[in-house]
Amino acid sequence: MNKSTLIIGRQPLIEALTSGRAIDKILFQRNVSGESIGEIRKLAKENNIPIQQAPPEKFFSLTKANHQGVIAFAALIQYMNLQQVTDFILAQGKIPLFVMLDGVTDVRNIGAIARSALCCGAQAMIIPDKGVGALNEEAVKSSAGALEKIHVCRVNSLLKAVDTLHLNGIKVFTSEMNAAKNVFELDFSEPCCIIMGSEDKGVQHYLSKAADEHFKIPMAVGFDSLNVSVAAGIILYEAMKQRL
Amino acid sequence: MNKSTLIIGRQPLIEALTSGRAIDKILFQRNVSGESIGEIRKLAKENNIPIQQAPPEKFFSLTKANHQGVIAFAALIQYMNLQQVTDFILAQGKIPLFVMLDGVTDVRNIGAIARSALCCGAQAMIIPDKGVGALNEEAVKSSAGALEKIHVCRVNSLLKAVDTLHLNGIKVFTSEMNAAKNVFELDFSEPCCIIMGSEDKGVQHYLSKAADEHFKIPMAVGFDSLNVSVAAGIILYEAMKQRL
Repeated sequence: MNKSTLIIGRQPLIEALTSGRAIDKILFQRNVSGESIGEIRKLAKENNIPIQQAPPEKFFSLTKANHQGVIAFAALIQYMNLQQVTDFILAQGKIPLFVMLDGVTDVRNIGAIARSALCCGAQAMIIPDKGVGALNEEAVKSSAGALEKIHVCRVNSLLKAVDTLHLNGIKVFTSEMNAAKNVFELDFSEPCCIIMGSEDKGVQHYLSKAADEHFKIPMAVGFDSLNVSVAAGIILYEAMKQRL
Repeated sequence: MNKSTLIIGRQPLIEALTSGRAIDKILFQRNVSGESIGEIRKLAKENNIPIQQAPPEKFFSLTKANHQGVIAFAALIQYMNLQQVTDFILAQGKIPLFVMLDGVTDVRNIGAIARSALCCGAQAMIIPDKGVGALNEEAVKSSAGALEKIHVCRVNSLLKAVDTLHLNGIKVFTSEMNAAKNVFELDFSEPCCIIMGSEDKGVQHYLSKAADEHFKIPMAVGFDSLNVSVAAGIILYEAMKQRL
């Protein structure tokens, strides 16, 4: 596993972007301008790479080289395009089983979910470009390498991703504590994507509204507090069992 | 939640031990001796509290008070006696569902397992007095408070604990990657205890031999690497589902 590496300066970053290198995020020093900055913005947008503003001190702490107000963090994970991954899975004659993470910030939980997803036969994990834990070294380690084996699709809108799934005939199921149906009452044998929300806030309302089905994991007692990676593991296990 | 607190000196420790206060471990300075030390050793043995030797520097780093060569760490969790817990569960007319941890060292995994156990209706968690992660603040936090709600039985021998379970008519099932049966082929509706091993070594051989059944979680692909707390969650979910 390689360490996260820096891409320093405007031209090196444009070259990295055009060559399709995976990038986690780009830092712009305040008030940077120029033609190359416009091009970086355009390429970043096309590839769903977030751009953040940072003060000169931040740049100084990262490198002593001539950064021209631009530094990017190369990603450990090669992000894939959701439509391309879907085409690929369908072309292989497989039934899509995807997981979407909405607001899961703990990198160890993300790693554990990737492991469970791979073990249970899910082919892709969909994450937003903001509001999710970084797929950094700790996440890759927690995933026991699964993050490097599963398709990871980073999207700039989860709602648009749901639209893409629907257009491809993939149903969307959300895990919600107050749902009427139990997880084992759902039909996971059809093409589907499971949305996992954060432990405190759950799945966001607008995603829940766009979903086809809502389900809960039944609880034996009043204590209703599974760890999000355990909950995802249980749901993925249930899906796998139905598909065995 | 209280911070782990120190018990400093011989008489305070004897009083804490005789009053039944939960203690994680005791530190002896090398070559301590005397009648009170003999009594502490006896009480520690009766209560399955590990004693460790430590150099003077360790004592100095912990306290400036007159420690008389003896310091103990009060536990956050009140440990229970396995036979008493079993009697209590049976007297309530409940069917025992216990979890035993063999070599699970990561405190966050222990916390997550306690959460799953409580959510899925398990009544007790059995841990050894050595070779397991400390039930410290981080474990309690990871458990979302479940460690303070579930019965935690700390034993000095897991094998003897298996004997105790058998004498009470409780079957012992081990989770093992190479088992012939799948988890859903087992009958979890009867009184049972699930043994979870460490991710790298699995359940120890002598415990596996003493068990009544061995099972695996089926995998959809060659990648066979669930996080131990996720695996425990899946098994406990399967048990709960059968009991619903």
